[in-house]
This record gives sequence, C-alpha cells and structure tokens, in this order.
Amino acid sequence: MASMIFTDCSSSTTARLLPLARNPLLRGKDGVVLFRRLVTLTPPNFTSYRRTLTLGSSSPSPLTHVTASLATEASATAKIIDGKSIAKQIRDEISVEVSRMKDAIGVVPGLAVIIVGDRKDSATYVRNKRKACESVGINSFEVRLPEDSTEQDVVKFISEFNDDSSVHGILVQLPLPSHMNEEKILDAVRIEKDVDGFHPLNIGCLAMRGREPMFVPCTPKGCIELLHRSDISIKGKKAVVIGRSNIVGMPAALLLQNENATVSIVHSRTPNAEELTRQADIVIAAVGVPNMVKGNWIKPGAVVIDVGINPVEDAKSSRGYRLVGDVCYEEVVKVASAITPVPGGVGPMTIAMLLTNTLISAKRAHNFE
Amino acid sequence: MASMIFTDCSSSTTARLLPLARNPLLRGKDGVVLFRRLVTLTPPNFTSYRRTLTLGSSSPSPLTHVTASLATEASATAKIIDGKSIAKQIRDEISVEVSRMKDAIGVVPGLAVIIVGDRKDSATYVRNKRKACESVGINSFEVRLPEDSTEQDVVKFISEFNDDSSVHGILVQLPLPSHMNEEKILDAVRIEKDVDGFHPLNIGCLAMRGREPMFVPCTPKGCIELLHRSDISIKGKKAVVIGRSNIVGMPAALLLQNENATVSIVHSRTPNAEELTRQADIVIAAVGVPNMVKGNWIKPGAVVIDVGINPVEDAKSSRGYRLVGDVCYEEVVKVASAITPVPGGVGPMTIAMLLTNTLISAKRAHNFE
Repeated sequence: MASMIFTDCSSSTTARLLPLARNPLLRGKDGVVLFRRLVTLTPPNFTSYRRTLTLGSSSPSPLTHVTASLATEASATAKIIDGKSIAKQIRDEISVEVSRMKDAIGVVPGLAVIIVGDRKDSATYVRNKRKACESVGINSFEVRLPEDSTEQDVVKFISEFNDDSSVHGILVQLPLPSHMNEEKILDAVRIEKDVDGFHPLNIGCLAMRGREPMFVPCTPKGCIELLHRSDISIKGKKAVVIGRSNIVGMPAALLLQNENATVSIVHSRTPNAEELTRQADIVIAAVGVPNMVKGNWIKPGAVVIDVGINPVEDAKSSRGYRLVGDVCYEEVVKVASAITPVPGGVGPMTIAMLLTNTLISAKRAHNFE
Repeated sequence: MASMIFTDCSSSTTARLLPLARNPLLRGKDGVVLFRRLVTLTPPNFTSYRRTLTLGSSSPSPLTHVTASLATEASATAKIIDGKSIAKQIRDEISVEVSRMKDAIGVVPGLAVIIVGDRKDSATYVRNKRKACESVGINSFEVRLPEDSTEQDVVKFISEFNDDSSVHGILVQLPLPSHMNEEKILDAVRIEKDVDGFHPLNIGCLAMRGREPMFVPCTPKGCIELLHRSDISIKGKKAVVIGRSNIVGMPAALLLQNENATVSIVHSRTPNAEELTRQADIVIAAVGVPNMVKGNWIKPGAVVIDVGINPVEDAKSSRGYRLVGDVCYEEVVKVASAITPVPGGVGPMTIAMLLTNTLISAKRAHNFE
C-alpha cells in the first residue's frame, strides 16, 4: 500500500494537473466502460458485431463479510477503507449469483459497449477492468465504430442492443466525437438497459421519495456501498458532497439524502467551502481538483470518501505521472476516522457497481430473485 | 394586512393542527388545481365533457416592475414580500401574452383538470383561484368523475386530453381515491402537458446540469420567482430548505442549486435543524408544521420564504381556524431582512406559476415566442 501514501500533498495551485482527457472521472462514462474484445467496423460494414462470452468462475469465493481495514505507513489514525478488497468481495458475490442464475434458468447477464473512435486512454483504462468482467461470468458484447461515424450509425447499434434479449446493459463510452449529440445518443438507450443510471428518468426517480430508479449510477452507488460495508452509519449524519456533477456529486447527494443524512452540496460558487465541509460527519469529494480538501477542512473523526482520480506530473514515476485524489490524503488521514485511498478506494467500486447493475437488470428482465 | 400579523406564535406542540386534509400543501396537487366549471359524469356517460372558455382581458395592466414591500403593524424590520401583489403582476403579464398569442396565431392556451370524487375542501380552494384563471384568458376544460370510478376511467380522460391540441396543460387533482394507483395515473399525462412538473423525467432534468425540464413545479418555481422579483440575489448564498417533499422541498433545493446557491436540506431526521438553518442567507420552509421556525433559527438579515399553509384552531375566527405558516412570523419578521407572509406570500404564486406553465406549454406547442 506504500504507493497510496504520498510523500507530499501538493496544493491545487502547485500541482500540475495533466490534461483532463486522462482523467476518467472528468470524461464521463470512461470510468464504467468495459472492453472485452474490440471489433472494428468501418462503414458500410455496420451490419454485424462479434460477441464474446465469459462464463462465471466455477469456484466463487465464500461470502464472508470483510471489514475494510489496512495498516498504513503514515502516522494515520483513520481506518483505510479498502475499496479494492470490498470490490473484490462484491465481484465474488456477483459471480455466485451469475452462476446461480445460469444454473437455475440458463440465463447469463450480458453487457454491451459501444465505442466510437480510438482513444488510447480508454483502452488502457479498460484493460485494468477486463479481468473483473471475466471473473464474474458476465457476457460482453462490443462494437467499435470509427471516429467519423454518424449519430445514426451509433443509434443503429444501440437499437440492436435494445432489442437483443441477451443484452441486459448498454454502455456508450464517453466522450463521443464532437460532431455527435451526446444527449440524443444516450437517450436512445432503453431505460431498462441503462445500467449507468444516467437517464433523466432514472435521476428523477432517485430524487423523488416513493419512486425507485431502475439503476443507481455506478460511482455514487459505490461510495454508499463503501460506507455500508464499512459499518458506517449514514442516517442522521451531516454529509457534505463536494462537486455537483451529473455522474457523481448530484446523485451521491440524492443517495445520502435517501439514507436520511442531512446533505449540503459544496461547489465552485460556494464561499468558505472549507467551513461548511468542516461541519460534516461524512464528506464525499468529487470535484476533480488534486489535493483540494486539506486536513483543516475535516472535522476530527469524520469519514472521507475521495472520488477524485487526478493524474499529476511525477518525474519519479516511470509513467511520468501519478494519480492523486481530491483529498490531501496525508493530511486528512490524520484527522478522519475513515478514508478511502486513491487509487484503491472508490475506483474499483465503479466497475463492481456496473457489474451489479447488469446483474440486477438481467434478474429483473427474467423475474429471477 | 392586519390579518397577517398574528398576535401569538403558537409552538408546534401547543398549536392544534387541523386535519391534514384541509392543508392544500400536504394534499399534493390541490394547491395547483384549477376549477372552471364542474361537469359531473356518472358511468357509463364518460364519453363527453363540457368546455368553458375564458378570453384574455382586453386591457391588461402595464408591465411595471413592482418591488414587493408593505407596511407592517408589528415592530418589524423585514421587508414583507407581497406574494399577492407579485402574483397579480405575473397574471397581468400572462394576460398580455395570452392576448398577443391569440391575436398573432389565433391560439388560446388551454388547461384541463380531472377531479375524482367530491371533496369540499378542493372546491373551496379552487373557488379562490377561479378569478385568476379567468383574468388571464386561459381556456379551461374540466371533468369530474365519481368517487367509485376506475383507474381506466381516469386514464381514458387523460388520453383524450393528451390527444387534444387545444389542451396544453393537464392536472389530475390529488388526492385520488385510495383504490387508485396515483403514480400510474399521473404517469399517463403526456410530459409535454405535465404543467405540474411532477413527472420523474421533469424532475430528473431539473436535477441534471445541462438538461432543461419541460416544466418547473409550480410552488418551488413561485418561491424562486418571489426572490427574483424582490431583487434578492441567490448566487453564492447559503440556502437551507426545510422539508424534502417531492412537490416543494426537493425541487426548491434543486432550483436554488441551479442558481448557484449552496444548498442544505433539513428534514425530520436532521439533528440540530435550527443550528443549520441559522447559517442560511435564504431559508425556504416547506415542512407543514405550524410556527416551527422560530426567531432564533434565523440569521439576522436572512431572507425567509414560508411555504407552509397550516390551518390551526382559532375560536375567534368565524371559520373556527386560521392559517399560519411553518415560520413563526411575529418572531422572524424582527430578525429577517425579508419574509413572506401567510397567507399572501407563496400561496398566490402557485396558481400564477401554473398559469405561466400553461402559457409556456402553449407557446412551445405552437413554436410561438
């Protein structure tokens, strides 16, 4: 875990943030995109796509409860919430469920991904996730379209997946090329297969009491799951969400509120953000600014969930950069009662929640409990 | 205005709240229901409904900007935000627009109401609003169905209104009889005509940055309009919304956030609600508890919008009750810089915003600007 403990805590003014294109969170759905095998199609050969199947692991891990806790090398007081370990536990549980479903009714959950263009960063990101997908036995379907495809090309494949009963979740990797209307394309995904949970109808149901969304967006769902599985109570607590993005901050605030926290959202127009944050029992930072949340922003004993994954220059690294969160880890770990590291905190949970949503979708489609 | 200044400020423990059925806010859509003329239909005569038309006033008031300010009889320091006067101004503006639209393209906005059952409280409430509807020249269509109607009966009329190009807004008065599935019936209203703005798709678009809802729910929209028309800046302010209902609290919080306030939602599970409220520059109280928000909950100089309309017993009143807000007016008026009275604050704005939404819908349907 040594790589997670930074020896400095660069301020946002001194750290050099690498181009946003490298930051999966700021790129929208990249954080939840799943590659299985690439099939490059060039017009006019858009009429077919290849399918690759992954079966469930034959010997799933036992469903033991794992309380996230790791030794740290700093003089930390906070419990480290080990997202990697919790995500592994969840994947094991999914694997068991996928096998059970296959054995009982012969159905295997399927996830389809549509990728337009040829971004290397996406490919790299996805490579890290592929094993997770394979390990749980979810089928994956993939289409890669060239950068100069039309909106109609993309919508055509979405429609095919919409109508394909073996596909239970559909992801369109963002960002799309600039000539495409992202909203229009995303809205083409049937809500029953919108495992990202980004459809406004889903978000509306998330916001409304008495309504149930089809799917809860993966990253905020992962944040809440980290709290649950670390036995951190939410009800009656003061929570501050830093950032109000559609994919993390806003839905995270709605989820916390649904769990009866008293929620405040801090954003770029908030004066004295640190003062408000310092009142919180639970802080979720999802703003995309490296090391923004300092130790003196945090009430002693608060729980801190760091969603940020910010690449900053690092000459010592062979890659030339390292990943840091929105939270100044080395300061906050001394103040908080629990904290997620970056990497290894929220990151692994996003893919685990995507797999969970795909399983939920398949179970719902086949009325399997 | 004397009737608005209460001589006492009963605490919620001593005031006797009358049955909730009398409270329009707690009954959902009653606050925005508009009667024009009742047509009682008994099965099997569901095949027709009567229409009544109201034309725009021929001499609308000039569009002068009115800053809400009234003299008070207490030793108040707060500016009184006169919702009645601001709502009148808005209705005058709507009236001008309705006339302009009719003159230009021959189209008159139309609002349809479906009422099931025979609740006297609704009839009373609606009587107070009828003149507002007439004065702006919006056509109204009405159906009253008997208490023992089926869901299919109601949906049938919704479908007719959905397909009727002269109807631009559809309201189903709540509460519906207990044997009906409210969600199913409300979801039958076409989103283009859901002038209440309660559809989850509307709420989702309200919550998401970069999306525009078809309609903003009337009461919270009225709260924001009161702030705008009283020249009260929202951007960068700390706002607390007390209450998280689907029809007021939650959408009010989303609207404040869209205007770049930093928003916290206080609810029944919030410990130390008064402490959090005392930090706010803007307070919107929408909880349905008479006089809950005391003077010491309010930061000196804060702006207070009181959405509550709570009937409490009053032997001195000929009706046996009087209406009070969620805010202890006589205390808060001495602390706040501006406050809405009850009645005469938010109440009149709800109907004004319903008329606004109906006009917006008609303009959108006919691409009229």
